[in-house]
Amino acid sequence: MTTGVRRRMGVEERRRQLIGVALELFSHRSPDEVSIDEIAAAAGISRPLVYHYFPGKLSLYEAALRRAAQDLAERFVEPQEGPLGARLLRVMGRFFDFVDEHGPGFSALMRGGPAVGSSATNALIDSVRQAAYVQILAHLGVVAPSARLELVVRSWISLAESTALIWLDGRRIPREELQRQLVHDFAALAAVSAAYDEEMAALLRHLLADEPGDGPFAALITRLATLAPA
Amino acid sequence: MTTGVRRRMGVEERRRQLIGVALELFSHRSPDEVSIDEIAAAAGISRPLVYHYFPGKLSLYEAALRRAAQDLAERFVEPQEGPLGARLLRVMGRFFDFVDEHGPGFSALMRGGPAVGSSATNALIDSVRQAAYVQILAHLGVVAPSARLELVVRSWISLAESTALIWLDGRRIPREELQRQLVHDFAALAAVSAAYDEEMAALLRHLLADEPGDGPFAALITRLATLAPA
Repeated sequence: MTTGVRRRMGVEERRRQLIGVALELFSHRSPDEVSIDEIAAAAGISRPLVYHYFPGKLSLYEAALRRAAQDLAERFVEPQEGPLGARLLRVMGRFFDFVDEHGPGFSALMRGGPAVGSSATNALIDSVRQAAYVQILAHLGVVAPSARLELVVRSWISLAESTALIWLDGRRIPREELQRQLVHDFAALAAVSAAYDEEMAALLRHLLADEPGDGPFAALITRLATLAPA
Repeated sequence: MTTGVRRRMGVEERRRQLIGVALELFSHRSPDEVSIDEIAAAAGISRPLVYHYFPGKLSLYEAALRRAAQDLAERFVEPQEGPLGARLLRVMGRFFDFVDEHGPGFSALMRGGPAVGSSATNALIDSVRQAAYVQILAHLGVVAPSARLELVVRSWISLAESTALIWLDGRRIPREELQRQLVHDFAALAAVSAAYDEEMAALLRHLLADEPGDGPFAALITRLATLAPA
């Protein structure tokens, strides 16, 4: 039976299946806890056959990671229509979906370590960060970002990563709150930069002018006003 | 001559000297570009004698990193006196001094990779983050932080790291501006959290009440007011 199934799968199909099985296992436990035997069993094939398609665990891990990275980058894509706050909030929802689906694997990858901290995995993480950066600039309508805008966007991306990692460690705050908070954090970091930089201030004024009274940015400004010293 | 000097150095003294020489080299270039031969030459001893004190480059790298981590943690220590904004600004100044002194080594370490991403180095990085976290809680006067306060403090620490890394990549923004901006970012992230959480709001009101009119937090609030929609 198994042999029959195996024969019907082409090389590319079998590779895709193995990557899918591996990604599922690597997502739910730290990669160094997942063995090739386990991957072979989950795929319903023998250990030597896994090695026929992938020379070792690291190459299978990297292939699984490439698929996850592509999946995540696709979730960043959002139509450039409507208020920016609402767009960013939808992307944050899909980002947390991803983090939720790949929790332990995402933590292990982002915290680094011997099993996961290779040059190839670091380059892949950087490519996803770069995809996020390019998407955000496109939504901001900026082609040639200033050093200060680049800092705000890139440092906010790292804030989103660390917020997701802290969330995974116990899930003590509802993710919906964190998704909205990250949208607010973006506005707050931009505002801090804008307080000292006219180019950032002009960009922020332009963005806020398009925000509806019931959007996430407007809600923040109203609530912050109640915190100001009397 | 050299032999005479060598004989006068005790084991601990020689180890300390080697760690100092190695830290200097690892700070100014990526660790995988630094060879044991180079460390031996800089220390004025033979390559076999280096191996007499450290079994290999990794153990010497980890020893250098432990010294750097201790140095950085000591720079976080700040008397708990005076307004919080000014205290945080002084710590940021010392943090950027450290980043400046160890630039390429700091980048290589924080970006991970085969030469530097071991379990031991990751544990050391986490210990420095934890030292920063403990210091900040002490300054805030908080013993049992809520999940939301913990998130604000830990995610701000990661923001400080990523801001420093982005700064090192070209130094296109004056570091004094970034030091002040990080102090403001802390207030901004706390304010975003406080907008939806009464415990954070009470803490923030308490902290801002002690801020002088010419401190970094007051300056931010004044400047932000000019950005608000008319």
